[in-house]
Amino acid sequence: MGFFSKDIKTMDDLFLHTLQDIYYAENKIEKALPDMIDKATAPELKAGFEQHLGETTSQIARLDQVFEKLGLEAEGVQCPAIDGILEEADEVAGEVDDDRVLDAALIAAAQAVEHYEISRYGTLIAWARELSHSDVADLLEETLEEEKATDTKLTELAEGSVNASASS
Amino acid sequence: MGFFSKDIKTMDDLFLHTLQDIYYAENKIEKALPDMIDKATAPELKAGFEQHLGETTSQIARLDQVFEKLGLEAEGVQCPAIDGILEEADEVAGEVDDDRVLDAALIAAAQAVEHYEISRYGTLIAWARELSHSDVADLLEETLEEEKATDTKLTELAEGSVNASASS
Repeated sequence: MGFFSKDIKTMDDLFLHTLQDIYYAENKIEKALPDMIDKATAPELKAGFEQHLGETTSQIARLDQVFEKLGLEAEGVQCPAIDGILEEADEVAGEVDDDRVLDAALIAAAQAVEHYEISRYGTLIAWARELSHSDVADLLEETLEEEKATDTKLTELAEGSVNASASS
Repeated sequence: MGFFSKDIKTMDDLFLHTLQDIYYAENKIEKALPDMIDKATAPELKAGFEQHLGETTSQIARLDQVFEKLGLEAEGVQCPAIDGILEEADEVAGEVDDDRVLDAALIAAAQAVEHYEISRYGTLIAWARELSHSDVADLLEETLEEEKATDTKLTELAEGSVNASASS
């Protein structure tokens, strides 16, 4: 059973709650990506999502390591933010027929997910350093760099489709 | 009444849907900020949220201008993503007694909101340029710069609290 927000009294509690939040989020993202891979039509977008699925699995393993380093059991706590972001992604991308419009919607949805993760890992790293868990901060930093690289790649894909359209 | 996702057929439809999504989000953020101002304890955080409330009001006015330029009525469409992000913010910050922990939770919540907005405005700007609405893209770019500046300021506040704790 996860940690409830009413149990948050100290920075350690807040750190743990946010770690459980991103653990839940990463696991939801891992489950959502295969559907996004199926839906994507541009081969480079499909490949990008496939690569990100592999990264997400490693990021979950990295979070397992973080829990272990802290001597805690790895577990999630429900995260209404990622639930809402993924619900919205599904709602929008679920109804689009045109390939180019669908890919644009999928890229936008994936960037909203990436930005959520970038914000949460940024916060967790700052708090890990504050709480003198520098080894944990270093691990989370690796994930943050991957999330930023994914976001940059998605922007390039979005701009690629813009250029394709401008020259068509 | 807003635009439904089932009506998304073209890039114009997707652009309009996302514009209505961020219009709804900005209006929800404008309603949420006074509570965050009330809760914040560090004077510089309170002042930062107050300044951001003013900016949010201007950003809504800027979106009104965007709808006007496109010859459309300004209206929102429910955005489960921002609902989830704000629900989570409320859930976490609602239960914390310690001032420093509460401020840290509020900064983290505000950064999740900023990153959602950064992702949506980035997407909207790319699509506005693709759809040859360069005047609209320029207006949205002003908001994006403000959101990024707010995020940077929040990071500084978060690090400020880290330093304060490190030296205490």
